[in-house]
Amino acid sequence: MSSYAASFDDVLIAHERIAGRVHRTPVLTCGTLNELSGRSLFFKCENMQRVGAFKFRGATNAVLSLEDAIASRGVCTHSSGNHAQALALAARQRGIPAWIVMPTSAPEVKRRAVEGYGATIVPCEPTLEARETTCDGVINDTGATLVHPYDDPRVIAGQGTAARELIEEVGELDVIMAPVGGGGLMSGSCITTRAMLPDATLVGAEPTGADDAARSLAAGELVPQTGPDTICDGLLTSLGDLTWPILRDHLQQIITVDDSEVIDAMRLAWERMKIIIEPSSATALAAVLSGGFSSIVGERVGIIFTGGNVDLAHLPFN
Amino acid sequence: MSSYAASFDDVLIAHERIAGRVHRTPVLTCGTLNELSGRSLFFKCENMQRVGAFKFRGATNAVLSLEDAIASRGVCTHSSGNHAQALALAARQRGIPAWIVMPTSAPEVKRRAVEGYGATIVPCEPTLEARETTCDGVINDTGATLVHPYDDPRVIAGQGTAARELIEEVGELDVIMAPVGGGGLMSGSCITTRAMLPDATLVGAEPTGADDAARSLAAGELVPQTGPDTICDGLLTSLGDLTWPILRDHLQQIITVDDSEVIDAMRLAWERMKIIIEPSSATALAAVLSGGFSSIVGERVGIIFTGGNVDLAHLPFN
Repeated sequence: MSSYAASFDDVLIAHERIAGRVHRTPVLTCGTLNELSGRSLFFKCENMQRVGAFKFRGATNAVLSLEDAIASRGVCTHSSGNHAQALALAARQRGIPAWIVMPTSAPEVKRRAVEGYGATIVPCEPTLEARETTCDGVINDTGATLVHPYDDPRVIAGQGTAARELIEEVGELDVIMAPVGGGGLMSGSCITTRAMLPDATLVGAEPTGADDAARSLAAGELVPQTGPDTICDGLLTSLGDLTWPILRDHLQQIITVDDSEVIDAMRLAWERMKIIIEPSSATALAAVLSGGFSSIVGERVGIIFTGGNVDLAHLPFN
Repeated sequence: MSSYAASFDDVLIAHERIAGRVHRTPVLTCGTLNELSGRSLFFKCENMQRVGAFKFRGATNAVLSLEDAIASRGVCTHSSGNHAQALALAARQRGIPAWIVMPTSAPEVKRRAVEGYGATIVPCEPTLEARETTCDGVINDTGATLVHPYDDPRVIAGQGTAARELIEEVGELDVIMAPVGGGGLMSGSCITTRAMLPDATLVGAEPTGADDAARSLAAGELVPQTGPDTICDGLLTSLGDLTWPILRDHLQQIITVDDSEVIDAMRLAWERMKIIIEPSSATALAAVLSGGFSSIVGERVGIIFTGGNVDLAHLPFN
């Protein structure tokens, strides 16, 4: 039995539950990036997942976990990012309503994407307090179930399926890396990796402008993120009560990278791998190319590319 | 025995020769594009090939075909596109010199890419006559071997290996599609497909601004391309004496698409598949999404994405 929010058994059950609804994304390699890093890199391309992000794994697992009577009342979350689209599509696939609480400041393109998946957007003021209050109101009114973007056992178990597919496909890996925002993906990856590759090293990546996980690890206690300032719009949030203990106990290190390193890494992936990754995705590649990675031992490194949702009209190059 | 420039045996020999030097690129699928087209599409991602284009297959086969004494004197071509980079890298891998005749009007970024692979650039005036004369001069002076971008049996055989990998990976296909420029890739694809899937339909795609292959098929004779006007910078050339008879005898149809359809298709691939393809690559996807494709029978369609070399500072979106 695990003392954490989710166990590897939960990941296995989630994997079976979401099979057929979630893409088994490809694992790609790149000779140029191997040369630049001096390692053998294996990229799990969740940018090619449905809705363009790994978030669809956890959202689908959460939605499919609900009993029919509960599910019929719908689901609710507050997010303006990839989790919003993921929950909207997962709900539509099950044929249940979804309410997405989104700040009025969210870009039009994100609102349209969520509405395109058939969800109802509930606008709120752009503060965490307003988001949570509005979300509570929706839940009181409708009986919908909250599906938190990361601090939810069903979500953590679902995100852990990406690392499982990566390890199944490439076998032994010395290091597993992923970006850390709220910690849902990294938590799931820790649980899976410890079960499948007990000796592998687990490393997170964060932008210096939202380095709450690095500071939490250094302090030995959860340090909330305040005033994040980074291009990595998927990594602005604080760790959660469920994800923090998993990261605390399993991560060897968090490597932080500044936004210019993120943009350089993103450009390398676009130009050399010919794939589109978003800035948050690029943090782990930037980390493996940074001086901070030199202390990490191991030849074969698995990296999860988390998402590929960018606005082609506003690219950070040049 | 084939009466064409290359036979399927030549493709098989080429495939063995280039194995280990050329990437076995992934075949990707996309639910959204299947829905939009009403077919099952399988994309062979040669945009992820070395140097970012299928051209590396033919160039590598040509360079490795040379006997040592001939090879040591080097290779030469005239091109400002993907073949230039492909031949430069193939020559460097064999440790022989390469001269690339390139018009003085070629963008700096393309010159630097070729020089980055260690080739010598020989500038010339931007006319076909100047290119050929300059190329002849280099060959006279150095004893280098000409490797034509497409009208060369070794190049055609090498390009045919992409379709072989596609068919090996996904099995039965009803239709095989590729863009048509000089016809090297489409010729190789015809030879491979006729041998592996005798009943499959072969369809080419061209921009309306460089539709010499469509006009040649309609006229029953090779009609040279004059004054091409399209964003598809890899498809400006005329068919060759070796590629034309193969296309004439095997292609069921050429579908033409205008540049706005190309840009829309390119954007779909970027946004939905999260992969970077160049405009020339997008013609075949644009064709399968166009009204012109409705007369083509068959559910399972294989499409070769030819390249992914774009200047991120000058994108055609918006």
